[in-house]
Amino acid sequence: MASRRSSGDGGDGDESPAMRRLRRLSLHLLNPSSSPSDQEPEALALAACAAGPRRVQGGAEVSASLAAYLRGRHRETQARVFEFFQGRPDLQTPVEMSTAAHRDLCFRQLRALVRDAGVRPLSLMADDPSEYFAVMEAAGGVDISLGVKFGVQYSLWGGSIINLGTKKHRDKFFDGIDNLDIPGCFAMTELHHGSNVQALQTTATFDPVTDEFIINTPNDGAIKWWIGNAAVHGKYATVFARLILPLQGKAGTPADMGIHAFIVPIRDLETHAVLPGIEINDCGHKIGLNGVDNGALRFRSVRIPRDNLLNRFGDVSRDGKYTSSLPTINKRFAATLGELVGGRVGIAYSSVGILKVAVTIATRYALLRQQFGPPKQPEISVLDYQSHQHKLMPMLASSYAFHFATIYLVDKYSEMKKTNDEDVIADVHVLSSGLKAYITSYTAKSISICRESCGGHGYAAVNRFGALRNDHDIFQTFEGDNTVLLQQVAGDLLKQYQEKFKGGTLSVTWNYLRDSMSTYLSQPNPVTARWEGEDHLRDPNFQLDAFRYRTFRLLHSVAARLQKHSKTLGGFGAWNRCLNHLLTLAESHIESVILAKFIEAVKSCPDEKTRQVLKLVCDLYALDRIWKDIGTYRNVDYVAPNKAKAIHKLTDYLSYQVRLVARELVDAFDLPDLIIRAPIGLQSEAYAQYTQHVGF
Amino acid sequence: MASRRSSGDGGDGDESPAMRRLRRLSLHLLNPSSSPSDQEPEALALAACAAGPRRVQGGAEVSASLAAYLRGRHRETQARVFEFFQGRPDLQTPVEMSTAAHRDLCFRQLRALVRDAGVRPLSLMADDPSEYFAVMEAAGGVDISLGVKFGVQYSLWGGSIINLGTKKHRDKFFDGIDNLDIPGCFAMTELHHGSNVQALQTTATFDPVTDEFIINTPNDGAIKWWIGNAAVHGKYATVFARLILPLQGKAGTPADMGIHAFIVPIRDLETHAVLPGIEINDCGHKIGLNGVDNGALRFRSVRIPRDNLLNRFGDVSRDGKYTSSLPTINKRFAATLGELVGGRVGIAYSSVGILKVAVTIATRYALLRQQFGPPKQPEISVLDYQSHQHKLMPMLASSYAFHFATIYLVDKYSEMKKTNDEDVIADVHVLSSGLKAYITSYTAKSISICRESCGGHGYAAVNRFGALRNDHDIFQTFEGDNTVLLQQVAGDLLKQYQEKFKGGTLSVTWNYLRDSMSTYLSQPNPVTARWEGEDHLRDPNFQLDAFRYRTFRLLHSVAARLQKHSKTLGGFGAWNRCLNHLLTLAESHIESVILAKFIEAVKSCPDEKTRQVLKLVCDLYALDRIWKDIGTYRNVDYVAPNKAKAIHKLTDYLSYQVRLVARELVDAFDLPDLIIRAPIGLQSEAYAQYTQHVGF
Repeated sequence: MASRRSSGDGGDGDESPAMRRLRRLSLHLLNPSSSPSDQEPEALALAACAAGPRRVQGGAEVSASLAAYLRGRHRETQARVFEFFQGRPDLQTPVEMSTAAHRDLCFRQLRALVRDAGVRPLSLMADDPSEYFAVMEAAGGVDISLGVKFGVQYSLWGGSIINLGTKKHRDKFFDGIDNLDIPGCFAMTELHHGSNVQALQTTATFDPVTDEFIINTPNDGAIKWWIGNAAVHGKYATVFARLILPLQGKAGTPADMGIHAFIVPIRDLETHAVLPGIEINDCGHKIGLNGVDNGALRFRSVRIPRDNLLNRFGDVSRDGKYTSSLPTINKRFAATLGELVGGRVGIAYSSVGILKVAVTIATRYALLRQQFGPPKQPEISVLDYQSHQHKLMPMLASSYAFHFATIYLVDKYSEMKKTNDEDVIADVHVLSSGLKAYITSYTAKSISICRESCGGHGYAAVNRFGALRNDHDIFQTFEGDNTVLLQQVAGDLLKQYQEKFKGGTLSVTWNYLRDSMSTYLSQPNPVTARWEGEDHLRDPNFQLDAFRYRTFRLLHSVAARLQKHSKTLGGFGAWNRCLNHLLTLAESHIESVILAKFIEAVKSCPDEKTRQVLKLVCDLYALDRIWKDIGTYRNVDYVAPNKAKAIHKLTDYLSYQVRLVARELVDAFDLPDLIIRAPIGLQSEAYAQYTQHVGF
Repeated sequence: MASRRSSGDGGDGDESPAMRRLRRLSLHLLNPSSSPSDQEPEALALAACAAGPRRVQGGAEVSASLAAYLRGRHRETQARVFEFFQGRPDLQTPVEMSTAAHRDLCFRQLRALVRDAGVRPLSLMADDPSEYFAVMEAAGGVDISLGVKFGVQYSLWGGSIINLGTKKHRDKFFDGIDNLDIPGCFAMTELHHGSNVQALQTTATFDPVTDEFIINTPNDGAIKWWIGNAAVHGKYATVFARLILPLQGKAGTPADMGIHAFIVPIRDLETHAVLPGIEINDCGHKIGLNGVDNGALRFRSVRIPRDNLLNRFGDVSRDGKYTSSLPTINKRFAATLGELVGGRVGIAYSSVGILKVAVTIATRYALLRQQFGPPKQPEISVLDYQSHQHKLMPMLASSYAFHFATIYLVDKYSEMKKTNDEDVIADVHVLSSGLKAYITSYTAKSISICRESCGGHGYAAVNRFGALRNDHDIFQTFEGDNTVLLQQVAGDLLKQYQEKFKGGTLSVTWNYLRDSMSTYLSQPNPVTARWEGEDHLRDPNFQLDAFRYRTFRLLHSVAARLQKHSKTLGGFGAWNRCLNHLLTLAESHIESVILAKFIEAVKSCPDEKTRQVLKLVCDLYALDRIWKDIGTYRNVDYVAPNKAKAIHKLTDYLSYQVRLVARELVDAFDLPDLIIRAPIGLQSEAYAQYTQHVGF
């Protein structure tokens, strides 16, 4: 059964007087000249469509005002990136090209961005992370491969030097990485291990005689795999390996100090020849992102100087002794991986950008495309079909919701980098995991829905959905598999839950749980469970309460289940027995955070009219999510049957309302044609652009 | 929120004695040597995994017996197709190739199948449709582009001659189409019209002076678009156009007789030059299926002989008079489109084949791949994680369900072609629409889930998910947009519903509604709504009743809503107001049909052990679907809260049980390595095949 569900009973019926008032109000709001008559919404929509694609009166103002509110402080930086590429047709990615040509183009795009446009990404990353992410998103708008190639070079290779190394590494590598003289790799994943980083098998054994580390691949499963920049362009790689210290273990055996990062030269700086002891193979054609050259690396006793250990969290002295400011392997491992959180922030942020492109193309085409209609009348826009509104309008609302949530995440990340405050660090770590997982999964599904909603023309490569989906797909996997990341969120919630009962404090984003814990230990209120008025359903307090109630209940019940099962199954077995429950909890929590940020953004919007449009979108986001999980709410009688029906009815109605401002809402994303590119998604003359593309 | 949901309360707890008995029984069944101890299932699974990928004892027998039961009578035909391509490495599709090269290869594959392997598809279609579909599915296994190119040439171009033409057309074209001397096109879709075929704008005007039709494209929106075989290989096209008869309208005006099909030569038979008056452009690179050459056609007053009208349902005499055995434009239109139902049958059938390939790769890799595990113990297979079982096991169960449903559809289609029985025709028309829409939507989503479940290695093009998803994607759109097709199902249900109240008969597949209408007019039974024993939940009668109850309730309520809204909104407006409800109804009905066929297949299975495995899979299919829509069941109190929890718990448990025979279940699909191809999805040595592919 698809997610579209029906209560099985009339989902509408005669409008209530309050509903009628609301509708009149919103129509008036968007189209002040219309008389507040009691026409059926459909009749209005049909009349409008019969006159061809239509703009709400004052629509341009609505979208301009919305755009101004959405626009962050880095919008001009992004505009400069777009302008630069606009002026360089030689750097634009064609609809079809070979992997080899795409890799070459992608490297030229990145080099031009750095050398011709004068962007210095590593400096940005160090000085102003939110501007760094804005540039990366803009690069991804030009070609997602470029955004990822950018991320490999700067977030990963550059980030490893900045975050895991010390001054000597920065001094040696910073400028070369920044100006792209030294393309490099981040060699963590192995053939047999991706998520379980602690089980990596590559070794780095210290040789006290020569003062070197020996990097070795002990078996086929330990071949470094999927390493970006490795197949063609990389000169160096940061290699994650088990640090082995001879004689430091029990009774003079070698000691395994756990995973550390080492800088390993892989190609000659002058000749670009692969260095001795290193075997590089090409991971080959991928589903997408073929502008990025992923390779597989095998090391056969490759020697590197002791200085090449990235030694911020742990070091080896000349005589082979280990020193660290952190007491245990686990703490060092956590600190090492913790520094890589920026990658996830960037992915969540870029994923929202991709979602906006897909939603914009699908919405504009749905307004343009007409098919069928009442007998002997003109055809109507497909966006006037209830089913099409159901497919696209909650998705449009989600794009807005995710926009505000990722802006918040990027701000928090910048704050963390500035303050190094422990609470903020903990907050950003979990929030970036949760938002990355939740948003990329949502975007991946949505691109497919957009393609399907555009029918046959959605299948033309030039209309973008194929490349968007294929390039974005791996966002669900890299920098942390989504299923694994959600478990980190659940784990953190449980930790906080236990600490609460020990009287500890809660981190910032989790604060709401404190109140929830007091409120929700009792049963749902049988009176409010019946309230079904729109005022109530569109009250942010009701919406937030519903999201948080669900989260708290999931948390409370899974904590009890884990405790029970641990006795017989052990910790691991109990976790696995409750795994679906834990993942649902994590998603529920992330949805609560997203809604809270959206509600704040609505409240903070200074312009009354713009605020009302945003409120409409926010209400659709909230009620659509509640309706999608109505079984849970019904099961615990948080919502009575009459209220469930009212939520369903209002969700359909809000989708219809959002459809009336759909054009304005996508225009407000302010995406230039260079980024949209799809002929069917351009603001004007879409069909003509399309026939022209094909050769007519 | 993802579809994985939790009741919010302990979904398990201590096993009931009956549950324990059941588990013992099933373990014993699959592994007769194991002692019926009361070990935790997890403990067993972990022990097995620690010893590496494991086979259930007697597993080979289980899969052989299942395979024998699944295998249709055309399995040998398919095996011959596979063997033929196995012996022709020159015809195998590489992982990456240009559109131009792929088109050329695809044509060579088809020609070799016909000329070297001696297959005569058009003869098969005429004589034994189910064998025809089996060959087409096998061709799609070799390369989905080949399956579609095959379908364009035979189902569409050939089918239009056989089904819409008369003897003179068969005599002239049959052999040339069959042996591929005459590649042809099916030119229906236009730039502005796909689903709304009645609104096509291309015209065919009769010229009584020359006894010809003049084919014309009146505007850009009427350019024939997406026409397979048009860009490169086609010699002829069956063009759908409005038949215009001069002087036959009121007061001597031209009469528009509606959509008819005409044979139009488009390229010179000798030189292959495009003929005068015809402009062909290339639709270009697509998301997938780039082996198929889609083109766009514009006609500038192209003259064809009167004989080129495909005149089975309507003809024009020498003096320009129209004759037909069918009385109205609508009836002729329905008859014309009705003959094309075979295309949908083929798509539904092929979509199941693609789903099987994706599920096989993902399941085998999930058994092979190990990641994390209990402290200080070996890592466990990712398929031992509850979340992974949740992703893949209901999908595996659905593959089985769809297998039996499409076998039934193909049989019905063959019967229809033989008998021309009106009830069977009606049944096949609606069933093919519903199954095509439901199955292709499910397969499209599932391929993405399979990719994601295989993590990074799922992203390597060689591991197939990219091509499978991209090639299959358009199955949701062509031969009828899924959203439109589901509306046909809903419309038919409503018609039957109304006829029932007029005392009419119901068509075969709908028979269950007759009983439902009597049973369900009362309220759900408050006693059975509480029953939660496994015997009850796994009783096919309960499962079918739940599916049918939901369908009937949706039907009953939407009928009332439509009646109410028609008064104010008119028929079209009322339909649109209830559209989501109607689509849910259609899906619910199709699910009922699928479940009924699966239950029959379980009952008919002659081998006891095999039957028990199938029963397990069928129960998972049924309960997973009920759980996914639990909100609906709860809302109407068909299911009480305790029963909802029991269903949730049993669904998780059945997923676990199916996981224990997952290898056997995918092996039973009996797909040769030539079809699987993905290194990570091969039956043995998967990692070694993969490293070798990359060059180690």
